[in-house]
Amino acid sequence: MSDAKAPLEFYFDFSSPYGYLAAERIDELAAKYGRKVKWRPVLLGVVFKATGAAPLTTVPIKGAYSMLDFGRSARFMGIPYQQPSRFPLPTQVAARAYYVLHDQDCAMARAFAKAVYRALFVEDRDISNPEVVMEIAAAVGADRAAVAEAVERPEIKERLKNEVAAAIEKGVFGSPYIVCDGEPFFGADRLPQLEARLAGKEF
Amino acid sequence: MSDAKAPLEFYFDFSSPYGYLAAERIDELAAKYGRKVKWRPVLLGVVFKATGAAPLTTVPIKGAYSMLDFGRSARFMGIPYQQPSRFPLPTQVAARAYYVLHDQDCAMARAFAKAVYRALFVEDRDISNPEVVMEIAAAVGADRAAVAEAVERPEIKERLKNEVAAAIEKGVFGSPYIVCDGEPFFGADRLPQLEARLAGKEF
Repeated sequence: MSDAKAPLEFYFDFSSPYGYLAAERIDELAAKYGRKVKWRPVLLGVVFKATGAAPLTTVPIKGAYSMLDFGRSARFMGIPYQQPSRFPLPTQVAARAYYVLHDQDCAMARAFAKAVYRALFVEDRDISNPEVVMEIAAAVGADRAAVAEAVERPEIKERLKNEVAAAIEKGVFGSPYIVCDGEPFFGADRLPQLEARLAGKEF
Repeated sequence: MSDAKAPLEFYFDFSSPYGYLAAERIDELAAKYGRKVKWRPVLLGVVFKATGAAPLTTVPIKGAYSMLDFGRSARFMGIPYQQPSRFPLPTQVAARAYYVLHDQDCAMARAFAKAVYRALFVEDRDISNPEVVMEIAAAVGADRAAVAEAVERPEIKERLKNEVAAAIEKGVFGSPYIVCDGEPFFGADRLPQLEARLAGKEF
């Protein structure tokens, strides 16, 4: 166990519905217990190669249930949700843009991540389109042209690759995956357990 | 939507940890809202053939997390749990015995099902062993020799096969899977959503 006030680590993919639900709550939940959160976008496509998993909605029988559960879980949590018309979709440009912004301004990167999630799961925008990603970056105050150029650099592609590999190495097998003092919590439906842990409840 | 007071349908496999957790709460939860519950044991091995899924604990990376989450979720729910030394294990004899008892005495079958789950997840008994299954049946008042003979009959084997096929046809892809007025809830972690639905909350 590390320092009791260490930040939570929050791993997610920008096309993950349950990742979006956790993203809408995690900062507020952590702050209630004096914690900060490190946001770490990953690529589920790469993660699933390591585990042999497939996107939920493509699994026979379970896929239809998942589509129902995304929206119902959102309503249960009081979070706006609309099933995206393009789903799942590639998120590497959004993830690369996140790390570009993160190296400049942590708060701007956080605002960008939340805006990307809402663009997909509330506004049904195509976040796999680099133009859309750059518009979102500009809207949170980033230099659009600079980010557009940066996401194509080999260093940032390598950076994202390394972040995903490091996440898998840490045990990340899906989204959202939250680490609190070394203990993993998988799924937006584990936020109540995470909160009980942060509150120091015995279980 | 069927009659608002229709019984809940509860599908589960006797080797499913989350099925056990739901089994410890479902009757009490349903009764609070004037509902009964139909218990329907299935065989996840057959279900997984339809969906292409594998037992959680055999999935790379996710497997280790699952082992941690079983016990933690049990503690969070206030339910005794011990990871079985044989896991997962075949449950067809237990499931067949359930249907044999169910045709004689519904309440006895219910008591048997709860006792089988506790034998596995609290007492670490080998519920794949027909002798153990018969001991549990006898302990809830069944005629041990009659049940031992009945579970080997072709009709009961066929009956279980049909129950599992009907469950898959209904959309069952895992355990626990609960249907309330036509609406499916998958996982012990969906009991709060099920309760909100039973309570008539809007979401």
